[in-house]
Amino acid sequence: MQLTSPYLLFLGSAKNRADAKTAVGISEWRPDKAIGEYALPECEVSVGLPKMGLEEAASKGVKTLLIGVANSGGYIPDSWIETIRKAITLGMDIANPMHTRLQAIHGIVDLAKTHGVALFNAREYTDHLPIGTGKKRSGKRLLTVGTDCSVGKMYSTLALEKSLKTKGKNCTFRATGQTGILIEGSGIPIDAIISDFIAGAVEKLAPANDDSHLDLIEGQGSLHHPAYAGVTMGLIHGSQPDYLVICHDPSRPHMRHLPDYELPSLSDCIRRNIEAAQLTNPNVAAIGICLNTFAMTEVEALEAIAKAERETGLPATDPIRFSVDKIIAAL
Amino acid sequence: MQLTSPYLLFLGSAKNRADAKTAVGISEWRPDKAIGEYALPECEVSVGLPKMGLEEAASKGVKTLLIGVANSGGYIPDSWIETIRKAITLGMDIANPMHTRLQAIHGIVDLAKTHGVALFNAREYTDHLPIGTGKKRSGKRLLTVGTDCSVGKMYSTLALEKSLKTKGKNCTFRATGQTGILIEGSGIPIDAIISDFIAGAVEKLAPANDDSHLDLIEGQGSLHHPAYAGVTMGLIHGSQPDYLVICHDPSRPHMRHLPDYELPSLSDCIRRNIEAAQLTNPNVAAIGICLNTFAMTEVEALEAIAKAERETGLPATDPIRFSVDKIIAAL
Repeated sequence: MQLTSPYLLFLGSAKNRADAKTAVGISEWRPDKAIGEYALPECEVSVGLPKMGLEEAASKGVKTLLIGVANSGGYIPDSWIETIRKAITLGMDIANPMHTRLQAIHGIVDLAKTHGVALFNAREYTDHLPIGTGKKRSGKRLLTVGTDCSVGKMYSTLALEKSLKTKGKNCTFRATGQTGILIEGSGIPIDAIISDFIAGAVEKLAPANDDSHLDLIEGQGSLHHPAYAGVTMGLIHGSQPDYLVICHDPSRPHMRHLPDYELPSLSDCIRRNIEAAQLTNPNVAAIGICLNTFAMTEVEALEAIAKAERETGLPATDPIRFSVDKIIAAL
Repeated sequence: MQLTSPYLLFLGSAKNRADAKTAVGISEWRPDKAIGEYALPECEVSVGLPKMGLEEAASKGVKTLLIGVANSGGYIPDSWIETIRKAITLGMDIANPMHTRLQAIHGIVDLAKTHGVALFNAREYTDHLPIGTGKKRSGKRLLTVGTDCSVGKMYSTLALEKSLKTKGKNCTFRATGQTGILIEGSGIPIDAIISDFIAGAVEKLAPANDDSHLDLIEGQGSLHHPAYAGVTMGLIHGSQPDYLVICHDPSRPHMRHLPDYELPSLSDCIRRNIEAAQLTNPNVAAIGICLNTFAMTEVEALEAIAKAERETGLPATDPIRFSVDKIIAAL
């Protein structure tokens, strides 16, 4: 899967920015790739791009209608189908972050064939995947890991990439989840592939490269999460990371959705992830901490950062609120 | 998937017992379930069951033709198709351990429908799977783990089950790989499911049970294997094991197919598996070591067992060559 820009971001009936997280992510991290937004009348959100009808977007050269909105359940509601069909008729590829496959829409496969457009489901990966080999490969790789799910691994990875690119560093963001894949325009949805291939998929996603090149691999799950640690473990081994950045939400009371599970300490999280990563790269090092301090005041955030630095001896920051330069300096 | 016995074991063109490992496994561990074997003329193997034509098998009440043979690549060769079609025509379900799905054989889905029979692919799981919850559940569970892949986890689990059943213990073998699934007649092929569901699948496979009941869960892969550790990690968390039995092949020079990867020591393997398992069951204990001493003389095997006991302080045995009573005594 490799999306073709420019995109038109479809916002559906989104009521808030959380509903439109993929569109928000693209406007934040890949602003050059989207030239407009299109929403249904009841939508209450904008990502700040020019509002554009489908015909206008086509006439301005839009190549892909990117569904930038989510809903509970991840299904494609009937109210979107007319938009999707019309975009196809106008020659646009469709990119879809939902659980429902585009191909499940009645008649859409034939319509796409007639108009010579591609249908991309970001939560599906149908290309061949290899079994992991664990073979040492050239280039450097950084992986974000976390104390829990949804603590800011994708945003931290993208913030590191943005800052490194600004400094002229040769690096690539490697997306492993559906939102990251739509932001980057390519990637492998690591939690949606067959379990035997987790490590091999990451070896394919972040292959051998120039010695001066750095892959920034989006982490998933957590070694400390009872549902998703398998995915995380395979991702760590396949990444063969040189550097780990640990992501953490200091305001979280327990593991996500699991009141019976405490969050690990930062130092325990570092120790476990380093130990796992040493299997495929004995020289791996933890180089920094990214905190998600969204729920805190600035004073509280700075306190949390100072505390994390005292606990771990590593540079810490909130990659959205503050700069990631401290962590990049540790590379 | 729940196979119906009695089975007729199909041996294809097997040249040796390794080719026929599923049939050998059934004749070893579930001798009551198969009443005959059927092979193509060029086959050079028998598992010691009465040789039986398809019509004879049908007249004796066979319910399932079980493909008990494997080949390199895991495909269904053309030479088997006539046998499979005829068995369907005679009213038998088909059970298939190969990578190729039965449904890929031209016309077979309609033929199965016409004759009202079921097609089982042991490497595929199509039922709904839940996300893991990590919730404490009743009953006891034992999981086999290993220093590497293919060190005897399935045979060790089955040997423990056999001995426990002989002693009247209320226990169930829970199969997680295609061979184990065909031996047991049910299970979930944990390496063939979507990675997000590994732990949840094991929670479904080995659900809450009576306090006096013991599930014996077949392990997969190894936390020390760079390709498969993700599967193993999810299996450990989903199993919520009370007991771990560590499986090891003392004659193996390096990790399977990976000359650059050394095997872990038994004590390191125990420590890592216990640490992982403590996430969902803080009371987990390693209770014994199962060695695969197939390549050794009896004297060497006894020496290896004594060495493993000295190293770990746990009872050790070869579950095929000797008894597993020492380990059961530790339960």
